[in-house]
Amino acid sequence: MSYALSDLQHGKAECRLVTVDRAGEQHLLHDLNVTTQLRGDFAAAYTEGDNSHVHATDTQKNTVYALAREHGVSSPEAFLLALAGHWRAQPWVTGTWLRAEQFAWERLPANGHSFVRTGQETRTAVVETDGEATTVSAGLSDLVVLKSTGSEFHGFPRDRYTTLAETDDRILATSVTATWRYDTDTYDTDTPGLDFDAAYAAVRTALLDAFAGTHSLALQQTIHAMGAAALDAVPEIAEIHIECPNKHHFLVDLAPFGLDNPGEVFVAADRPYGLISATVGRA
Amino acid sequence: MSYALSDLQHGKAECRLVTVDRAGEQHLLHDLNVTTQLRGDFAAAYTEGDNSHVHATDTQKNTVYALAREHGVSSPEAFLLALAGHWRAQPWVTGTWLRAEQFAWERLPANGHSFVRTGQETRTAVVETDGEATTVSAGLSDLVVLKSTGSEFHGFPRDRYTTLAETDDRILATSVTATWRYDTDTYDTDTPGLDFDAAYAAVRTALLDAFAGTHSLALQQTIHAMGAAALDAVPEIAEIHIECPNKHHFLVDLAPFGLDNPGEVFVAADRPYGLISATVGRA
Amino acid sequence: MSYALSDLQHGKAECRLVTVDRAGEQHLLHDLNVTTQLRGDFAAAYTEGDNSHVHATDTQKNTVYALAREHGVSSPEAFLLALAGHWRAQPWVTGTWLRAEQFAWERLPANGHSFVRTGQETRTAVVETDGEATTVSAGLSDLVVLKSTGSEFHGFPRDRYTTLAETDDRILATSVTATWRYDTDTYDTDTPGLDFDAAYAAVRTALLDAFAGTHSLALQQTIHAMGAAALDAVPEIAEIHIECPNKHHFLVDLAPFGLDNPGEVFVAADRPYGLISATVGRA
Amino acid sequence: MSYALSDLQHGKAECRLVTVDRAGEQHLLHDLNVTTQLRGDFAAAYTEGDNSHVHATDTQKNTVYALAREHGVSSPEAFLLALAGHWRAQPWVTGTWLRAEQFAWERLPANGHSFVRTGQETRTAVVETDGEATTVSAGLSDLVVLKSTGSEFHGFPRDRYTTLAETDDRILATSVTATWRYDTDTYDTDTPGLDFDAAYAAVRTALLDAFAGTHSLALQQTIHAMGAAALDAVPEIAEIHIECPNKHHFLVDLAPFGLDNPGEVFVAADRPYGLISATVGRA
Repeated sequence: MSYALSDLQHGKAECRLVTVDRAGEQHLLHDLNVTTQLRGDFAAAYTEGDNSHVHATDTQKNTVYALAREHGVSSPEAFLLALAGHWRAQPWVTGTWLRAEQFAWERLPANGHSFVRTGQETRTAVVETDGEATTVSAGLSDLVVLKSTGSEFHGFPRDRYTTLAETDDRILATSVTATWRYDTDTYDTDTPGLDFDAAYAAVRTALLDAFAGTHSLALQQTIHAMGAAALDAVPEIAEIHIECPNKHHFLVDLAPFGLDNPGEVFVAADRPYGLISATVGRA
Repeated sequence: MSYALSDLQHGKAECRLVTVDRAGEQHLLHDLNVTTQLRGDFAAAYTEGDNSHVHATDTQKNTVYALAREHGVSSPEAFLLALAGHWRAQPWVTGTWLRAEQFAWERLPANGHSFVRTGQETRTAVVETDGEATTVSAGLSDLVVLKSTGSEFHGFPRDRYTTLAETDDRILATSVTATWRYDTDTYDTDTPGLDFDAAYAAVRTALLDAFAGTHSLALQQTIHAMGAAALDAVPEIAEIHIECPNKHHFLVDLAPFGLDNPGEVFVAADRPYGLISATVGRA
Repeated sequence: MSYALSDLQHGKAECRLVTVDRAGEQHLLHDLNVTTQLRGDFAAAYTEGDNSHVHATDTQKNTVYALAREHGVSSPEAFLLALAGHWRAQPWVTGTWLRAEQFAWERLPANGHSFVRTGQETRTAVVETDGEATTVSAGLSDLVVLKSTGSEFHGFPRDRYTTLAETDDRILATSVTATWRYDTDTYDTDTPGLDFDAAYAAVRTALLDAFAGTHSLALQQTIHAMGAAALDAVPEIAEIHIECPNKHHFLVDLAPFGLDNPGEVFVAADRPYGLISATVGRA
Repeated sequence: MSYALSDLQHGKAECRLVTVDRAGEQHLLHDLNVTTQLRGDFAAAYTEGDNSHVHATDTQKNTVYALAREHGVSSPEAFLLALAGHWRAQPWVTGTWLRAEQFAWERLPANGHSFVRTGQETRTAVVETDGEATTVSAGLSDLVVLKSTGSEFHGFPRDRYTTLAETDDRILATSVTATWRYDTDTYDTDTPGLDFDAAYAAVRTALLDAFAGTHSLALQQTIHAMGAAALDAVPEIAEIHIECPNKHHFLVDLAPFGLDNPGEVFVAADRPYGLISATVGRA
């Protein structure tokens, strides 16, 4: 019997890369977790154990560290684009999928070289190539936000299995995962490109502002508002995908103890949780 | 400005469902983690906060537990098919994505109602519907295996960034994630269908046998052998996707301490790790 | 045969409690994870299954939520002291061990009721009672800090198994876990007590300042400096215990690629890690 | 101002050590996670950054791997005793705390060198020395067990905050963490010592048998029965400490859907959970 092979991919996952730029008065720190995946003509390795086309994952790891020295790390997107350029030029490689997580550090006031990890969220970037085509996406995960009022939920269908009460005031809490794709023109030219750090910061601010500023009738509505705000903030974004768990905070029933509970005491639940998502693009 | 909405989805994630079937002399236990996602005509919730088409995620959770009582749980796939049938019939729902993890318990010898969690792996199942079409997939994750010999790796390209030595004897260790799709005919008929539990057990055995029995020249080769073995074992499988981290075990250099190390002392590394994947179908 | 029972304890772990204080213009949010453990005359439950002295863990959970309503949550320490007072008065309870984790939220600028989770660290508090005696401890975990210079390590003993090179410039990174005990007088009186929030903030600042400001010849030295700084900052602290993993950042050897690496490219390692600890008290 | 230092400790945590014994027809695999901590006269490192007494944590790691080659790994306890002997002989070291986790692998039938990770539990061992005195403890964590009947809970005190109903049939599920201390005579002699592997296996079996075989009126009672069974099974054990979360499985109320639920459909809860513990020794 014979078999059909597809989706062949190999690489090195989670290369932890920390760079220190000592050029200025203050050190610049980049803290990344880089994964590389190569696509190409690798079938013989699967069928015969013939590795003559297989760039070892150890080599892929070395390449991450060497290119960090050769190109520096100005942003995760720029670094992945350098990696993509390297691998595109190698024999037998027809495509790549490259991903980085970046962890945020805040400078401490004492001096220019001391830092504290800040925030819950992780910045993400993906560069994907297919032959000469390149796609750059950016994102974030674990941006945890909460509103203690300004959220309602009612008007949903009631069927045999519906018990949920309608509410016009609840806690709305979520952990935002967002991924947005930049227009090709923004990075695939010889002219100076997009400032990926500024774009990231603008999207993060837009998401927070929209979350806080939207009087929410459904988490869906908040998601749409966040996506629209991101598109408004950064014209180079083609579309954004947002996924939000509804991190339920249930009002505790204190009546058995002779107590009222006017929106003051909640239990934060773990599982199950609502899970809502959408892609927002330009019309 | 106006926006384009797509990929609208909402549901309840990670409903922990444990059922006890007390009909026989020995209790039968099913331990599932169920996620439901509905697709359909939900745009007004995003743009207007109009929830009149939004089956609340709380209702989706209730439906999981109610259908567990009404239909029982014979296998995760059968249970998800029952859920899919329910949601297909609801207004505004045009598609579903339903997933279950199942955790393995082994009966203790003392009596018919005592159990111990066994194994590292989690069984998975996904049922996806799009209108009348249904797709059933099954899988497993975290099946952790190791061979202390019978694995080589050499003949790979050497470029400027290659430092890895070739080897004709190494430890090969991985944590298998596999997902296979069943042919439509196996479940989309009125005749008695596939025994999903038996199919799962046959695939698991095939994967383990192929991992152990393949003298490996590359993890790629082992992946192909495992995929082919699964296809051979269960004719109803259309294709299987396998992803394997290469959980590196490095031989410790003991020479600085005046000691040899003939394949006896290793350090198990966490990150980075190789990551290899492929889809194996029928030719 | 008969057995000796000791260390009897039972309670409810990880009660997630979120309170919203709506009294002022801006909402005040407290986000806690509370664990209660009672000690006392519970032997009959163990030996006979006689639960007549066993305050159910469900009751302990209810008590957490009810007291949150009755007393409010001003600080984790104050809330645990209220819980301790409740349980001390119950029959069969001779002691308690009560713990809270508190998660930090930062107010978003848009309005008074929107928040984002900030920082990596978790604030902790433990109140322990033994009869009439009460001990209050506070702490933090996962305060992740890094210095990109200003850290040396040399002069350590070299034996048969030593291969580490001496260094006069390395990255020093750690995740601080600290626990400090307050003097009894600070809370066990009728006079207005310690401001636990202010004390926590002062210790956190002192730890960060000392970490950043200490030119470090050993992580041990930094730990001592942090402990001393905390004692200096808050006179009511009797002693502080600090545990710090040495989160190694190894300079990557780029010489095989014809590249130098003047302190610019590092790999952040996961395991193993150094682990250093000490208790610093007043002489 | 001067400070009092105590509890000084440093070492290397989580050295992942895998050994392959190739002497026999079948390979023997040991998979450990080893942590070492030294105690002694290290104050100058804290106060002055003087490392002349500080055995580097890197050296401690090297020692783990070198001694694994020199002594082999027959059991985690025996390996830690060899480590303890090494460190006791070093200058400035007055005590040690050494811990190992061991992960279980089951041989696959295909050949003598292929393995699959089995079980949820982790075996643990701690060797502690203080001068010439040595203490050996063993244990396990994450042994997850469940009974679908044969568990009751009633007769507990009812106060203002009690709402829990009494029950004479519930699911009892827990994840056992146990640690037992061996009598000094069993390992501190020149005569052949205790078979630590056999003792571990006997305790594990005793815990499972007692869990399954005890008709439980309280998780406390089950804990006592497990502890007593362990002491009965292995005479060399002085005492055993057991901690068990009560992993609640709540019967789902299906009445709103017109369905009964005769002990068939449960939700497995995450947090909060009961937490019960005790130490059982010999009278």
